[in-house]
Amino acid sequence: MGGLKVHGHPISPASRRVVLCLEEKALDYDFQFVDMAAGQHKQQQFLSLNPFGQVPAFQDGDLNLFESRAITEYIARAYADKGTPLIPSDVKKLGVALAWAEVESHTFDSAAAPLSFELVVKPILGMPIDEAVVAENLAKLEKVLDVYEARLTTSKYLGGDDFTLADLHHIPIVNNLMHTDKVKPLFDGRLHVSAWSKDILARPAWQKTLDKMKL
Amino acid sequence: MGGLKVHGHPISPASRRVVLCLEEKALDYDFQFVDMAAGQHKQQQFLSLNPFGQVPAFQDGDLNLFESRAITEYIARAYADKGTPLIPSDVKKLGVALAWAEVESHTFDSAAAPLSFELVVKPILGMPIDEAVVAENLAKLEKVLDVYEARLTTSKYLGGDDFTLADLHHIPIVNNLMHTDKVKPLFDGRLHVSAWSKDILARPAWQKTLDKMKL
Repeated sequence: MGGLKVHGHPISPASRRVVLCLEEKALDYDFQFVDMAAGQHKQQQFLSLNPFGQVPAFQDGDLNLFESRAITEYIARAYADKGTPLIPSDVKKLGVALAWAEVESHTFDSAAAPLSFELVVKPILGMPIDEAVVAENLAKLEKVLDVYEARLTTSKYLGGDDFTLADLHHIPIVNNLMHTDKVKPLFDGRLHVSAWSKDILARPAWQKTLDKMKL
Repeated sequence: MGGLKVHGHPISPASRRVVLCLEEKALDYDFQFVDMAAGQHKQQQFLSLNPFGQVPAFQDGDLNLFESRAITEYIARAYADKGTPLIPSDVKKLGVALAWAEVESHTFDSAAAPLSFELVVKPILGMPIDEAVVAENLAKLEKVLDVYEARLTTSKYLGGDDFTLADLHHIPIVNNLMHTDKVKPLFDGRLHVSAWSKDILARPAWQKTLDKMKL
């Protein structure tokens, strides 16, 4: 029963988010490939791990979890003494980090995930890009990054002075977007956002994640 | 500087979510009405509390927070010794509660919030209902409630055997939907979902919230 297992797919930003968290925590784990092209995530064996049929699912011994942002918070608390802290111990600092983690989960992701899908994933899958979706979400993302620029003028990381889950949760999608001609300039054109994105993408745990999650 | 303050609007499910959490914790607080019809949430005074210009914002002394689900987790941890626990102390149980809280935040809310807006808020504001949006989200909600029905067969609450934030976060929107002819039958027609929705809506803290948040 023992050990940590991630059931996911290397192209999935949510799967990469969980692997990155485990790497930040310097924990050993097994990565179990879910063959989404073959519909494995909609079959009974996977549905017993996540009834919503989405990657990733996670196991820690007899505990089954799903939803990447819940898995990372579980890992950060269950393995608080390992690797990077990821969650402030002071409760007021925790509140601020939680608020910016919610910003990622709702406001940032709702613009950035469609851009990543259109501009990074669709070309890999040979699907046509929907330019209207791209235009709409570029405009939304610009507004989000304006708020991030102001925030990062007063604080090194989004969640506070230290790197936390609020930053970590961004990394897989920011990595994808920095490989696109249309979105990269939105980051590069904002002084503090640019420095922040370079800083978080350069983390050794992310480099290890990319090595393991090669497409 | 002292004291707890919620800056919100009585019709806003997210504002109600925070007030409900404070009532569960039996904490004293001030509710500051934000005149959204007059655009107060987009003016500088409110933007200094939440740069994204959305209600609610929250203050605990010199701490400013926003994002309702971050505020509730902050309150649950900062006032762990008051009122209802809301967060399991066992870390594996916490993981499960966090996973179902994420389900609410993404999967449930993405179907239920548009239904609440179309069927409850728009009639109050005298706006026409978009029947295509209603039909699309009814179908999505049915699938979510099928998973909830299976989950609630094995567990009294979504997050585990005890009431947690995973259940609490649902209450404002479930309350709205139970006042609609189109959505109420989807809850009533599922045995365990029906019992769960009646249970959570009957909580004294929710009755107090409704009294304070009268429209």
